[in-house]
Amino acid sequence: MENSVTETKSHLANPQWGGRFAAGPAAIMADINASIGFDKRLWRQDIRGSLAHAAMLARVGLLTAEEETQIREGLHQIAVEIETGKFEFSTELEDIHMNIEARLSERIGEAGKRLHTARSRNDQVATDFRLWVRDAIDGTVAQVTALMNSLATRALEHAASPMPGFTHLQVAQPVTFGHHLLAYVEMLSRDRGRLLDARARLNESPLGSAALAGTSFPIDRRFTAHALGFDRPCANSLDAVSDRDFALEYLSALSLLAMHLSRLAEEIVIWCSSPFSFISLSDAFTSGSSIMPQKRNPDAAELVRAKVGRITGDFMGLLMVMKGLPLAYAKDTQEDKEPVFDATEAMTLSLAAMDGMIQDMTANNSRMRALAGTAFATATDLADWLVHVPRLPFRTAHHVTGRLVGMAEAKGCDLADLSLEEMQSVEPKIDSSVFAVLTVEASLASRTSEGGTAPENVHRCAQAWLERLDNAHE
Amino acid sequence: MENSVTETKSHLANPQWGGRFAAGPAAIMADINASIGFDKRLWRQDIRGSLAHAAMLARVGLLTAEEETQIREGLHQIAVEIETGKFEFSTELEDIHMNIEARLSERIGEAGKRLHTARSRNDQVATDFRLWVRDAIDGTVAQVTALMNSLATRALEHAASPMPGFTHLQVAQPVTFGHHLLAYVEMLSRDRGRLLDARARLNESPLGSAALAGTSFPIDRRFTAHALGFDRPCANSLDAVSDRDFALEYLSALSLLAMHLSRLAEEIVIWCSSPFSFISLSDAFTSGSSIMPQKRNPDAAELVRAKVGRITGDFMGLLMVMKGLPLAYAKDTQEDKEPVFDATEAMTLSLAAMDGMIQDMTANNSRMRALAGTAFATATDLADWLVHVPRLPFRTAHHVTGRLVGMAEAKGCDLADLSLEEMQSVEPKIDSSVFAVLTVEASLASRTSEGGTAPENVHRCAQAWLERLDNAHE
Amino acid sequence: MENSVTETKSHLANPQWGGRFAAGPAAIMADINASIGFDKRLWRQDIRGSLAHAAMLARVGLLTAEEETQIREGLHQIAVEIETGKFEFSTELEDIHMNIEARLSERIGEAGKRLHTARSRNDQVATDFRLWVRDAIDGTVAQVTALMNSLATRALEHAASPMPGFTHLQVAQPVTFGHHLLAYVEMLSRDRGRLLDARARLNESPLGSAALAGTSFPIDRRFTAHALGFDRPCANSLDAVSDRDFALEYLSALSLLAMHLSRLAEEIVIWCSSPFSFISLSDAFTSGSSIMPQKRNPDAAELVRAKVGRITGDFMGLLMVMKGLPLAYAKDTQEDKEPVFDATEAMTLSLAAMDGMIQDMTANNSRMRALAGTAFATATDLADWLVHVPRLPFRTAHHVTGRLVGMAEAKGCDLADLSLEEMQSVEPKIDSSVFAVLTVEASLASRTSEGGTAPENVHRCAQAWLERLDNAHE
Amino acid sequence: MENSVTETKSHLANPQWGGRFAAGPAAIMADINASIGFDKRLWRQDIRGSLAHAAMLARVGLLTAEEETQIREGLHQIAVEIETGKFEFSTELEDIHMNIEARLSERIGEAGKRLHTARSRNDQVATDFRLWVRDAIDGTVAQVTALMNSLATRALEHAASPMPGFTHLQVAQPVTFGHHLLAYVEMLSRDRGRLLDARARLNESPLGSAALAGTSFPIDRRFTAHALGFDRPCANSLDAVSDRDFALEYLSALSLLAMHLSRLAEEIVIWCSSPFSFISLSDAFTSGSSIMPQKRNPDAAELVRAKVGRITGDFMGLLMVMKGLPLAYAKDTQEDKEPVFDATEAMTLSLAAMDGMIQDMTANNSRMRALAGTAFATATDLADWLVHVPRLPFRTAHHVTGRLVGMAEAKGCDLADLSLEEMQSVEPKIDSSVFAVLTVEASLASRTSEGGTAPENVHRCAQAWLERLDNAHE
Repeated sequence: MENSVTETKSHLANPQWGGRFAAGPAAIMADINASIGFDKRLWRQDIRGSLAHAAMLARVGLLTAEEETQIREGLHQIAVEIETGKFEFSTELEDIHMNIEARLSERIGEAGKRLHTARSRNDQVATDFRLWVRDAIDGTVAQVTALMNSLATRALEHAASPMPGFTHLQVAQPVTFGHHLLAYVEMLSRDRGRLLDARARLNESPLGSAALAGTSFPIDRRFTAHALGFDRPCANSLDAVSDRDFALEYLSALSLLAMHLSRLAEEIVIWCSSPFSFISLSDAFTSGSSIMPQKRNPDAAELVRAKVGRITGDFMGLLMVMKGLPLAYAKDTQEDKEPVFDATEAMTLSLAAMDGMIQDMTANNSRMRALAGTAFATATDLADWLVHVPRLPFRTAHHVTGRLVGMAEAKGCDLADLSLEEMQSVEPKIDSSVFAVLTVEASLASRTSEGGTAPENVHRCAQAWLERLDNAHE
Repeated sequence: MENSVTETKSHLANPQWGGRFAAGPAAIMADINASIGFDKRLWRQDIRGSLAHAAMLARVGLLTAEEETQIREGLHQIAVEIETGKFEFSTELEDIHMNIEARLSERIGEAGKRLHTARSRNDQVATDFRLWVRDAIDGTVAQVTALMNSLATRALEHAASPMPGFTHLQVAQPVTFGHHLLAYVEMLSRDRGRLLDARARLNESPLGSAALAGTSFPIDRRFTAHALGFDRPCANSLDAVSDRDFALEYLSALSLLAMHLSRLAEEIVIWCSSPFSFISLSDAFTSGSSIMPQKRNPDAAELVRAKVGRITGDFMGLLMVMKGLPLAYAKDTQEDKEPVFDATEAMTLSLAAMDGMIQDMTANNSRMRALAGTAFATATDLADWLVHVPRLPFRTAHHVTGRLVGMAEAKGCDLADLSLEEMQSVEPKIDSSVFAVLTVEASLASRTSEGGTAPENVHRCAQAWLERLDNAHE
Repeated sequence: MENSVTETKSHLANPQWGGRFAAGPAAIMADINASIGFDKRLWRQDIRGSLAHAAMLARVGLLTAEEETQIREGLHQIAVEIETGKFEFSTELEDIHMNIEARLSERIGEAGKRLHTARSRNDQVATDFRLWVRDAIDGTVAQVTALMNSLATRALEHAASPMPGFTHLQVAQPVTFGHHLLAYVEMLSRDRGRLLDARARLNESPLGSAALAGTSFPIDRRFTAHALGFDRPCANSLDAVSDRDFALEYLSALSLLAMHLSRLAEEIVIWCSSPFSFISLSDAFTSGSSIMPQKRNPDAAELVRAKVGRITGDFMGLLMVMKGLPLAYAKDTQEDKEPVFDATEAMTLSLAAMDGMIQDMTANNSRMRALAGTAFATATDLADWLVHVPRLPFRTAHHVTGRLVGMAEAKGCDLADLSLEEMQSVEPKIDSSVFAVLTVEASLASRTSEGGTAPENVHRCAQAWLERLDNAHE
Repeated sequence: MENSVTETKSHLANPQWGGRFAAGPAAIMADINASIGFDKRLWRQDIRGSLAHAAMLARVGLLTAEEETQIREGLHQIAVEIETGKFEFSTELEDIHMNIEARLSERIGEAGKRLHTARSRNDQVATDFRLWVRDAIDGTVAQVTALMNSLATRALEHAASPMPGFTHLQVAQPVTFGHHLLAYVEMLSRDRGRLLDARARLNESPLGSAALAGTSFPIDRRFTAHALGFDRPCANSLDAVSDRDFALEYLSALSLLAMHLSRLAEEIVIWCSSPFSFISLSDAFTSGSSIMPQKRNPDAAELVRAKVGRITGDFMGLLMVMKGLPLAYAKDTQEDKEPVFDATEAMTLSLAAMDGMIQDMTANNSRMRALAGTAFATATDLADWLVHVPRLPFRTAHHVTGRLVGMAEAKGCDLADLSLEEMQSVEPKIDSSVFAVLTVEASLASRTSEGGTAPENVHRCAQAWLERLDNAHE
């Protein structure tokens, strides 16, 4: 090989892929079994679960009051150790559950060894993970609500600001910028609904399902369920330890939410592009270039646009893992946590970035207004006038309008620039009152149908959303 | 080329891929624009939408009563034509909406041309498609409910039938066959919940959103919404015509449902394999081989297992289509229907096949019972006894059990075959009452914790489900 | 229910989902087993395979010459029947293989019953499907080559046409339109390479693998392989009948190709949008609106953009089907054909549409040239000049340029509009020769590095591609 | 709220999702821009690229020999710092490229600032990442080759060991265990081919493409390409910095490879299940249970089965990111690295685990032999004998066999247990020589067609593979 320039030093040689497995089976199995590298994120949930379990064991007489006290205090001390970075996680102890239990026994002795009575790692991890996902849903819902609030606030501000409405990215009819922003509030409110539905559905407690078959100990599953904020215990122990549809439902809700955000992000990228120049973002949400200080790259929007891929990949990956798995527990299921963690992180950042951009953006109203009036954007208004006033059938009105637009295009002028005579040469029933509907403002004002873009509508909707969201907070 | 054997006749030559486009742009655009090939499935929904729209137009004075009557009767005649196969669909008219409207004008003249007043194809197709998806959800929910019923019925029958509970496909602890079947009832009930939530969320009417901005006609969107069984009109016209999250939510619910079915299907394939022989299926759900008449291939189960791929692919495909689409309408959205139709068809067949198999299968109770007692499956019962009776800490009891299993394995016998003395050599506190917990039946009977596998539990749960499902029907 | 308006006529009631399965198991299994609805597309391949098989059987003495002649002529007659639409496909005969074989026996009697000697449906369908995919690859490669040719032709035409090069959809540096188009030629040439690699890898013959284990008949697999244009027989009979990676590799190559097309399609949509107006498409590739005759919606581009979702969904779906399938044949595998047919059709249309648009589009050179000179797009040229001429270190040159751009921005002028004195106030080493590099044309001309955008480069590359592609045809 | 048991201590309260973004835009943009957290894995590749670039700059006179020496030595020192963990990575410097360049300038001053002449981060990261993927492919190919070697070694050992061949997981015909293992060698050899094709296709150098348009510096791209082991420079600068199909092709090859591994893993799980008991794995590749020491859970196989989900999710995610991205660089592209890193890690572990299991597993030959002779597995041999010897047409022979199997099934005996008279009652042409083909061993021995399961075939194929693989190493 002649790659003498770069290959002379061994530290630049290819790393040995799989090299760490040269040590043989032990290294491989350690890597397969150890989940502590990622499941330590469940520490809060694991301790909450153990506290509830211990309280229940004491209540039904499987622990003495003293044992329960020792366990409770021991767990709280461990929580402090973890939070302050003093806890030493051990890969040999494989996962967060064994790490905490082993430390507990180390601290409090015999009582620690009784904590695992009437439970198994199978129901324990299912419980911890449900708690984690529930917390994540709560966090996401709060962020979505905040974003809806920002959008509705900007929509109220721009309830009457004209902007070209596009179909096929071609100018179609005038809308208001506020109306456009409220479309996303609607989408996000459905995303929020999906998250809340997922939360309600997952809110059952697996604790007490034991390994797969339940247990012969006289446990009180309703007590632990209640203590952990669950609505009820899961009704079937096999189902409780082996299904992960709650994680998949959460990931599918995130995928749809991310898809909606990708659409808004794409629009922001296009709106920021100089030929459009509909909005601008401040330095806070753009990256510059030291060589071109005027350049404001909408990195934040691009990143949000991209995240839908990652989150959807997380969903797809876990769904494929679950395909065709026989009951009950299988090691495959251990693959459930990382995609959920990854998607949650991606979504948290996306929502923060999008909320920031919406608050930050400056609308270029004059540019949008100017473009809203081009491309015969009020042709539909003309057609509607022909139905309203001289009562032409819709399809006929449609046809007449087409001829008038053709005439204007040929003359290189706008519809409103045609003379009454020119219009009457196509359709004699047209009178001068038609001109009143051919302006952007008239067009906007006329769209008063429920959900339409008339500024008064948009104003009312934005305000209604702000009130509803405000109440949601209380 | 020497392929003289097969290539001599021109009709076996490679077809010209893309050959039909040799005719040029016109053929290409026809293929891009024409959706009638698949969207004719929306004919019922399109006519229902038009009937409601016409009734509303009459009510607000945009149609006369007579015009409305003409339209109503015309549409009903068209419905009959389509149902009886007499309607001629035209590719030139592109889609189902134009096909029906053109035929209406052909039949009733002028009045037909007034039908499209105050609506556009954008809100029309969004309305039709929501109605179709809503109908599909109703159909799927009914099928899922029927399958739950079949599972609960078989579970009741097998509430006390022992079967080995597996983890990692290794015998772990005894469960009952009924308990196992009820795990799927739980999963399916969540699937049903997801479908119903999706139905509630989609149940808003896009009709009256017009092209994208609403309309200036004095329409009554609440009237049409109500007439079509929607809860309310969509609140934002841009959102109403450009989002398809309702289709995606439906597809994601189908994907999770299909995943659950794939797990049960995999189990059926394994259970039917001769080394397992847990169940058998009749000829009705297996395919034979003319050469090996004894062979019963579980084709139906394999097919159900496979469909999760197809349905998930439909979901993924549409999600990717929607990624990054600016508002409002874009042609991309036309790709929404085929995946929904395809997934619905696949799911309808899967549910019918699964329901049939569950009703059809014969359980081989003796085979399952025999295997349930192997592999020291009651070791956990022994450990629990050590905690219950001599009050060993759980981790200690765990350890003692391990030593006793090791002893039995070395002797080549079962746990119950060890003598009391042998047991006491490991743990002196053991007494003869331990033997009572070492049988499969004792193990099952003891798992009385809520959701556990004790036959009385399973019996009660199965019965409760049957009652609930029965009530759901009424 | 009050939906009296629309629900009065029964033909508009919800269709009974799953209704066709009410007839019971027989209807379900018919639907599961019958593949004739889609696999009849394999008829050419099935007949080619049978012709080769029969010729081989005759050669090794398992058929007499006369039998082989009867079979050959019978199959050719059947081919004519199918091509002319006279063949009656039967669902009871399940698939294309049985349909053709049954018809053959009907026509020629005894000899027909000998055709299936030493083969099974398992190797037969694997052979047919490989032949089909191979044909599809050949068709796709031809279309990709044609598209590359169109792109290179337009690139040659626009080798020197300035256009703004974008990063983050922000104007960055001038490039030529030809250079931009050639980027896609490079991408497509890799796609073509992937397709050809897939073709080479699949080109092994499964025929003679029989059901799964090979056969005891003295067959000559090399003869049939050669007759069918395969490079060699598959080396392992179990692998030959149970893997479908050739279909997956084809679908993954289509997915990447579709992704590339989606990028070009997105650019076309943006370029056609009036704020950009970089290109226009004729009526042939846009859809108008009867009401707004000036509107040219880039439907063809939107459709191409969308197809990547569908094709990727096809890939994903089949991959998921294959996950975790034990050897050898399983019914799941029957799901291999529809995604391949669907993706092929989608790609055929996409490539035809894209090729048509590339040939059709009219570039708006003056608009692109104007925009290429905005936004300090030659700032990098200034920085490079500072390194070239006064030999500033790159990072320092970078910094000086930033200050000059800031100065121009503050003055509201372009870099070239700054006076020499102003420039020297920032960096005294600047002299008047700098102005020569600040024009769009100078910038373009200077980028002569290999692969750079200098018109002479682009001209040479475009020509080289046209020559290579021309040779590829011969 | 009553969750008093667990919620009393604040450290167990829900973490504030998005809390770290409360600090506002700065924290968000830092998170968006900083890639150093993951791209530091590219350090070796970044330094190799810079060494090649500096050598080229010196060669064409853009650096003095002394400057180049300073840079070279500085970079080697940095490599040592990183390798020994002494390098301090800074999040403020965003990525690995700026981290290394900044440190270089810190160490060697002015010369360091000249290194970035004639390149940009866009071509730099594209180069680094291609080098990384190329290294990863080399590592994967080596692992796949090792696994093929292990499989072929075990196949040689078991070339004549009978095992039941399955279709639909039903016993179909006898095969040998070696034959079954060689099927996977074939699959893996295609996977290896895909990886090598991907390597060849990616092996072009982006370096010198600069930001997007090439550069005016007189660089020598062939020199750097050669120095880095690339076959040639990328031909188009826009393509070079904006496409990522090389990463996608690698991920798609990994997805197919992972699918193949999932099939083998599923078989291992089933084979280890006690009703099958075809193989056993040692403690090295199973996890036990402290309570059931006899239990050997095939965790390693389950993990391999699961990884196909994760890897496919990585592929899907990145493909979706790339959908519809306009040229040239966009921030979205930054999402390319993590899925590639993640999939590579998952695959490295999967291959190591699978290789270990294949070497480790003990085949239970007697169990497989016993099952191979059940279920009339030699019925096909009987049918073939009827064609071979009395020259019945295949379809007739097929039919006769079916009747004989039915007779044996009714009698509860095997085919070989029928008397000659019984056989002749169905088909008088049968003579006693038929019994020779009805044993498992005779069946196996007869399948001598190319690729068939006859032990001599399998032996020869296994040996041929071992020789080929041995040569591949040299």
